[in-house]
Amino acid sequence: MLTREDTGAVARLTMNAPERLNALSDEMLTALADTFADLEDDTAIRAVVLAGAGRAFCAGHDLKQMQAKRQDEDHGAAAWHDLFVRCSAVMQQIQRVPQPVIAEVHGVAAAAGCQLVASCDMAVAAVGTRFGVNGVNIGVFCSTPMVALSRVMPRKRVFEMLTTGRLIEAEEALDLGLVNRVVPADALADATMELAQTVAGKLGSAVRVGKRAFYDQAEMPLAAAYEHTGKVMVQNMLDADTDEGITAFLDKRPPGWSQD
Amino acid sequence: MLTREDTGAVARLTMNAPERLNALSDEMLTALADTFADLEDDTAIRAVVLAGAGRAFCAGHDLKQMQAKRQDEDHGAAAWHDLFVRCSAVMQQIQRVPQPVIAEVHGVAAAAGCQLVASCDMAVAAVGTRFGVNGVNIGVFCSTPMVALSRVMPRKRVFEMLTTGRLIEAEEALDLGLVNRVVPADALADATMELAQTVAGKLGSAVRVGKRAFYDQAEMPLAAAYEHTGKVMVQNMLDADTDEGITAFLDKRPPGWSQD
Amino acid sequence: MLTREDTGAVARLTMNAPERLNALSDEMLTALADTFADLEDDTAIRAVVLAGAGRAFCAGHDLKQMQAKRQDEDHGAAAWHDLFVRCSAVMQQIQRVPQPVIAEVHGVAAAAGCQLVASCDMAVAAVGTRFGVNGVNIGVFCSTPMVALSRVMPRKRVFEMLTTGRLIEAEEALDLGLVNRVVPADALADATMELAQTVAGKLGSAVRVGKRAFYDQAEMPLAAAYEHTGKVMVQNMLDADTDEGITAFLDKRPPGWSQD
Repeated sequence: MLTREDTGAVARLTMNAPERLNALSDEMLTALADTFADLEDDTAIRAVVLAGAGRAFCAGHDLKQMQAKRQDEDHGAAAWHDLFVRCSAVMQQIQRVPQPVIAEVHGVAAAAGCQLVASCDMAVAAVGTRFGVNGVNIGVFCSTPMVALSRVMPRKRVFEMLTTGRLIEAEEALDLGLVNRVVPADALADATMELAQTVAGKLGSAVRVGKRAFYDQAEMPLAAAYEHTGKVMVQNMLDADTDEGITAFLDKRPPGWSQD
Repeated sequence: MLTREDTGAVARLTMNAPERLNALSDEMLTALADTFADLEDDTAIRAVVLAGAGRAFCAGHDLKQMQAKRQDEDHGAAAWHDLFVRCSAVMQQIQRVPQPVIAEVHGVAAAAGCQLVASCDMAVAAVGTRFGVNGVNIGVFCSTPMVALSRVMPRKRVFEMLTTGRLIEAEEALDLGLVNRVVPADALADATMELAQTVAGKLGSAVRVGKRAFYDQAEMPLAAAYEHTGKVMVQNMLDADTDEGITAFLDKRPPGWSQD
Repeated sequence: MLTREDTGAVARLTMNAPERLNALSDEMLTALADTFADLEDDTAIRAVVLAGAGRAFCAGHDLKQMQAKRQDEDHGAAAWHDLFVRCSAVMQQIQRVPQPVIAEVHGVAAAAGCQLVASCDMAVAAVGTRFGVNGVNIGVFCSTPMVALSRVMPRKRVFEMLTTGRLIEAEEALDLGLVNRVVPADALADATMELAQTVAGKLGSAVRVGKRAFYDQAEMPLAAAYEHTGKVMVQNMLDADTDEGITAFLDKRPPGWSQD
């Protein structure tokens, strides 16, 4: 359902249900939750790539599985509530794991699949990839996906995607801030891995506290954000590896970090 | 003052005081408030276009009317306070009506007229349209307009518009997220109507809950936003028309919605 | 350390420690804090330019000075905490002074130097200027700078800069909303001064209340933001110079403001 391949300090996760376009089924959500839980304490891993096998990155929720819940006594209400809680938890988990998570996107990222891209810390897309929150076309407004999208993209453009169901091209996604880079399809895996390795080459302890602080401060008023991040920087400075990093820089030599 | 023309599920509102460049006078604000109040419960309408008659979309407040209040015993304070309360209410009402509201912008959208564009859910502009919050040129900082603009555009660019009074062109407005599309002037009405009809072709009940949730979640921290929208999606799923929409999609046939 | 040159209603501040690339040392922070405190009550000044002497605008904190604190009994913790508190205070002070502050940026704006650009109300950059929050390269995640950057730029692009340490060019900074204009290096001072003079030509009392309200409302929910700015506009309207500004506009003549 979800394969993991580690290369040095980079973990590459591949959603592997190509026949369902890697739909976020109960099983896929459980696999993602478990894998990110493993990564939480894995200090050997300093960057994560999330990719999809087959024709698409991820086409969203598993509609057949969702429709089957209509047979429940409550017509599906409890099951769907549980589904959205678990799905939203995975999206937030991506921002809480200590390693930067990079989406490697190709084919289509639709509905909750587009939310997954928005929820990753960064994203690299292949030319030709299409992004959309198109649930509205079948009567399901992408209300949970918009939480992630409206926090990374201009508001009016998100509203348009939500209410028209229009898919946008990779270049437009780049322009709107949904992805960080667009590369030719045959360079996608390499470009994403290169970005992951760049990040993994940094001091893991510094990136860890920094990523956590990034999302924490984003929800604070300005003064509180500064108070919080000031403390985070003091902790960062007290790290012996940070001392070594600054000393090496002032001495014009590469740092000898304990993590290497 | 404000004409309304319904075409199918689209209501087209036209501000009709061209000799005042559709200024947001007391009368215009009342007409807008009344019309949006009517639309609140009008389930037959699923999209709204807001346009302006004459040379300009809207040039802002009615300065002559505002200056006349200086004759009041309190030199205008109470009247202006009332004016800004009513104007701000209209701007917020646009986001609270259940239908997506699309600004059809031409000529000039200045001061509170630019705020009106920013407050609409989406906007289509004619080539050559100019946008500005230029009250500063005559000593009136556009403090209420900036509430709307700073929520849809990059902060430094809004600050520049506010303090220089510079008008920007339609293409720059597109780039900054203030409008969704720029089209030739003679295609403006058609392009806006096409967008409106696309939105009106979706399931109204889904768009209604989605639009409401869009602005509600925008003001919540991430976890609360997910909790809220998860519940919204469950309600959306329980809609019989949504069941039909998903079933039709899985059966590869068009949906037969009760709204049609 | 910091020179000030007034031209009409514009104060031009130049950070003057070129041999340290204008690092934000204890002395530089004190000089900035003192100068902005002076400007707080200086109603003759209606716009401020902040520039840097030498090869760079500002390369960030003074690393040698910071490393020296490791000799303290607590290994530097108290000294660094104090440093970040003072530095964050200067960044917030820039937004609290009544005059718009425009960064005039050339060479490099790195780490806290990039934060300084993000914290100014507007910024003009020379072609060839590079911007980065590259502390991560030496093990110091730019946690306080990200507070400023994440409030003016798209989230995923800030995250990339923070975790890769990559420097971006002036054109990219313009595209991302970090600066307002990019001009040839030999036109930088003139272009910045022209923008400052445009702003200084507006009614100072209006810009003063408007700038204050701009940052205040940015941290409020929509309804509260409108309630607050509505009151601000009433105060603005009650200003005798504003009466003159509107009257002059309606009479099609230039205003005769008391400030001139």
